[in-house]
Amino acid sequence: MNSYQKNKFQKKKNSHELKVCVTPLGGCGEIGKNMTIIENSNDIIVIDAGLMFPKEEMLGIDLIIPDISYLKRNRQRIRGIVLTHGHEDHIGALPYIIPEIDAPIYGTKLTLGLLESKLEEFEIKKPPTLICIKPKDKITLGSFQVEFFRVSHSIADGVGLAIFTNIGIIMHTGDFKVDQTPIDGELIDFHKIAEYSNQGILLLLSDSTNVERSGYSPSEKEVGEHLYNAFAEAKKRIIVTTFASNIHRIKQVIDCAIRYNRKVAITGMSMNRTISMAAKHGYLPNVNNKVMIPFEDVRRHLSKRIVIITTGSQGEPMSALSRMATNSHKHLKIEKDDMVIISARVIPGNESSIANTINNLFRLGAEVVYEKVSEVHVSGHASSEELKLMLNLARPKFFVPVHGEYRHLVHHTKLAQKVGIPENNIFILENGKKLELTKDKARIIGSVSSGMVLVDGKGVGDVGNIVLRDRQHLANDGMVIVLISIHKQSGKLNSPLEIISRGFVYVRGSEELFTKAKLKIEIALNECLSKNNNLPDIKNTVTGILKKFFYEEIERRPMILPLIVEI
Amino acid sequence: MNSYQKNKFQKKKNSHELKVCVTPLGGCGEIGKNMTIIENSNDIIVIDAGLMFPKEEMLGIDLIIPDISYLKRNRQRIRGIVLTHGHEDHIGALPYIIPEIDAPIYGTKLTLGLLESKLEEFEIKKPPTLICIKPKDKITLGSFQVEFFRVSHSIADGVGLAIFTNIGIIMHTGDFKVDQTPIDGELIDFHKIAEYSNQGILLLLSDSTNVERSGYSPSEKEVGEHLYNAFAEAKKRIIVTTFASNIHRIKQVIDCAIRYNRKVAITGMSMNRTISMAAKHGYLPNVNNKVMIPFEDVRRHLSKRIVIITTGSQGEPMSALSRMATNSHKHLKIEKDDMVIISARVIPGNESSIANTINNLFRLGAEVVYEKVSEVHVSGHASSEELKLMLNLARPKFFVPVHGEYRHLVHHTKLAQKVGIPENNIFILENGKKLELTKDKARIIGSVSSGMVLVDGKGVGDVGNIVLRDRQHLANDGMVIVLISIHKQSGKLNSPLEIISRGFVYVRGSEELFTKAKLKIEIALNECLSKNNNLPDIKNTVTGILKKFFYEEIERRPMILPLIVEI
Repeated sequence: MNSYQKNKFQKKKNSHELKVCVTPLGGCGEIGKNMTIIENSNDIIVIDAGLMFPKEEMLGIDLIIPDISYLKRNRQRIRGIVLTHGHEDHIGALPYIIPEIDAPIYGTKLTLGLLESKLEEFEIKKPPTLICIKPKDKITLGSFQVEFFRVSHSIADGVGLAIFTNIGIIMHTGDFKVDQTPIDGELIDFHKIAEYSNQGILLLLSDSTNVERSGYSPSEKEVGEHLYNAFAEAKKRIIVTTFASNIHRIKQVIDCAIRYNRKVAITGMSMNRTISMAAKHGYLPNVNNKVMIPFEDVRRHLSKRIVIITTGSQGEPMSALSRMATNSHKHLKIEKDDMVIISARVIPGNESSIANTINNLFRLGAEVVYEKVSEVHVSGHASSEELKLMLNLARPKFFVPVHGEYRHLVHHTKLAQKVGIPENNIFILENGKKLELTKDKARIIGSVSSGMVLVDGKGVGDVGNIVLRDRQHLANDGMVIVLISIHKQSGKLNSPLEIISRGFVYVRGSEELFTKAKLKIEIALNECLSKNNNLPDIKNTVTGILKKFFYEEIERRPMILPLIVEI
Repeated sequence: MNSYQKNKFQKKKNSHELKVCVTPLGGCGEIGKNMTIIENSNDIIVIDAGLMFPKEEMLGIDLIIPDISYLKRNRQRIRGIVLTHGHEDHIGALPYIIPEIDAPIYGTKLTLGLLESKLEEFEIKKPPTLICIKPKDKITLGSFQVEFFRVSHSIADGVGLAIFTNIGIIMHTGDFKVDQTPIDGELIDFHKIAEYSNQGILLLLSDSTNVERSGYSPSEKEVGEHLYNAFAEAKKRIIVTTFASNIHRIKQVIDCAIRYNRKVAITGMSMNRTISMAAKHGYLPNVNNKVMIPFEDVRRHLSKRIVIITTGSQGEPMSALSRMATNSHKHLKIEKDDMVIISARVIPGNESSIANTINNLFRLGAEVVYEKVSEVHVSGHASSEELKLMLNLARPKFFVPVHGEYRHLVHHTKLAQKVGIPENNIFILENGKKLELTKDKARIIGSVSSGMVLVDGKGVGDVGNIVLRDRQHLANDGMVIVLISIHKQSGKLNSPLEIISRGFVYVRGSEELFTKAKLKIEIALNECLSKNNNLPDIKNTVTGILKKFFYEEIERRPMILPLIVEI
């Protein structure tokens, strides 16, 4: 290698090293399945790996995970998966991803605790390496270093990330709010953020979920006051439902119980599992044998002395609370003047099941306290004033809003402009878009494959547009099967037509409709057979005739399946 | 008849006359399909006849109307149908009910105008008698008299009803709010309500829709201010969407256009029809040739000089706005800096389609203004302080909350108790419950048939639980048909099995699954055939085996349909 060549090689190497790319694989242009990758030519860090709940048009789908084909192709560069907190939309895709990607996973104690119980359910063959970190820990992942800093959120033990690269600091807030009076006393780490800012933050990625809300999100502590007030008015048992992972909320419920001299029982599998895990790790210091009683012992105490914490805040049909509301819970009947507190937000799509649960509880005589009528829930995401605070504190050169639908990202870019970040330094990255950064420039250089992988039962990715379109069709107007048996030699119908329908009309009241339909098909069939038409032609003819006939008669378009048996 | 008998008869007759019954057939325990009947032994009045939009689990259903079998059985006693206002949830069931019930229909000019254009669409054979009334008109319907009084709502020309019976006044608010500064200057008629109250209101039926909101609903005029502010910031075209029936809103949009020297064009069939009807009847005095231009002429004007009023406020896929948002509108392409104002509430169930529309409009570079980020919409229903005002003004002896889910009705009873109505004088009537009133007593005496009649295409009531359950099943996991052809004489399979699936798995990637499934069935079939099992047994066996097999393999439960052809 001569000196010229050497120089060129050096330059090339340097130019490679002095570029970092940021690509969201989920969570940008949508709420959920959060996942972002940071990479240079040697190393990749994966931030979070969440799931998303299906939209209503995705019939029969259980959940959605990010498309990780880009990561699979670049397996050997992945140095680690870094988790910001333990919510499903940040860790829920891991059971599906771990078998594909062999990399250590970093997270705080509670985050890993939640992940572990999830992995147990899935019976993962080769368990991943889990490495527990604390805020202010700094780890090295290839040529990157990652420092964790405390943030407040609606789950305990959340962190943001400062990623030290050779071109500057990339800061990722994770999900956060600015809670000035957090339950566990752990403030969002203003000082660390200020420190990074003083060193110079090249790029900030910040949570956009609540950007449409003006002002500040109230402190979790304010929920406590409203819970206290509700408890004061309760005449009989109090039943509280919230997300199992909302440890601070559960702590506050138990505090209220202690103050009002009530015992606490827990029902619901995930609630039981999470509370014991959190208590074991020290997140619920008020859980002890004096206040907690087994659920079976509830009946041994006066109604006025009982608090029950349960699952079902989203009106899930099989949850303990839904069963109570429909009077089908084995061990607990709702009685007049029982109080039910729904201390959770409504996940979009669950509005009507939650409303049903509330209506049914009222029908049974319970008093129901919920977000619309009392402030028994606050959001865990920063409202616009907090987002501005974060932007002003971090003072990044470049800004990318994350965690939001397109409109949230747009609103967040406007906030950033308001606090002085130049429009050209702000980038809306939708999933898959690759942002390339140097010390002083940033530009979108293309995109990698990204998208939704649908999970239905054990099937991951085997349900796509064709299957969904068929389900949609079947869901709207059902189906009609026409069973035709043709005698091959004579070219005649062998036996009468059979029409079988499901989800189309109430069969017993529709004899006339089907008789007419049969007549139409028979005439057409005989014509086809006399012309010696081939099977596909016959099928098309039958389908066309029935389609037209049913639409004219009752304005429905069932899926039509002609089945021909040749003898 | 001796004097004893005569006396007894007299008494019986009197006791009949001095009783009035009130029964909701819709709108109580649900939002929508509002319909209430008031009756004595001779006469029935029907108040409103609305539709409801289907819940998400009612797959393929277009709309829901009340069960009117009770009215059909008592046809000869019906003296009239009285309409409070022209919204779908108050008049939308009429096209289905008119052919069954021959009674005159009473409503204000706008209400009847909206009804007429609806009836035209339906091509009703024998059009009903429509009788136009004004507020303060008093009509006689059998032994009842009905006086109409003005109320404010999110549609113009709404009225409440004072029904004079021989035991006292029954007052029905219709849908209302207390707008102290209404657009058309027509205040809710406090004085008439006070007058009825002075005469003594026996029973009040009052709108519960917004009972969960504290305080007052803002005046429609406040929307005008926010519209003005939005208009001031618009750089190019302004596209406004709202409900076609919200005449006051449309008037305000046109006022803004005039003030900012913009021309107004209208697109969307229902919007065009409603605006011309309302203008013809004098509800839109600002509609004239100076401000209005045909939609085709939009391109001839500067962007800054244009306002377009359009349909699509609920993200309806075929609406003009949705087509603009997906860049598939024939005549209008959204450009950067166009402003879209969504001046309407989100009807529950439409959240995600509206969110999609907003996101897509932002993607095209439009500025989108909607309820969450600007107060460009206010509710047309009374909040809790207004409801208390109504209760205090009316001072009824008995109270029945209407128009609400069960929880709304419960909250409304609590308000009524707060303002001093005794708990025993308040009744929650769910649909079908019959409240019997005398001069000084009220009690629920039983119930009449009521419920949901599902409309799907031209079919009214032919889709029930069985069909819906099948649609649900098909929607979740699709279906698998097994076509089996058996040779009757030999008792053997005639040809290989065929498996056809739809909405189940992606067939091309699932060859192995189906091969395995066929093998399982063949083994079982041969066993069945050798045992000479009958057809139903064979079908059950095949269904059972496949169910188990598919669940074990991929955790799905498709509908399984074995079809057997015997030769």
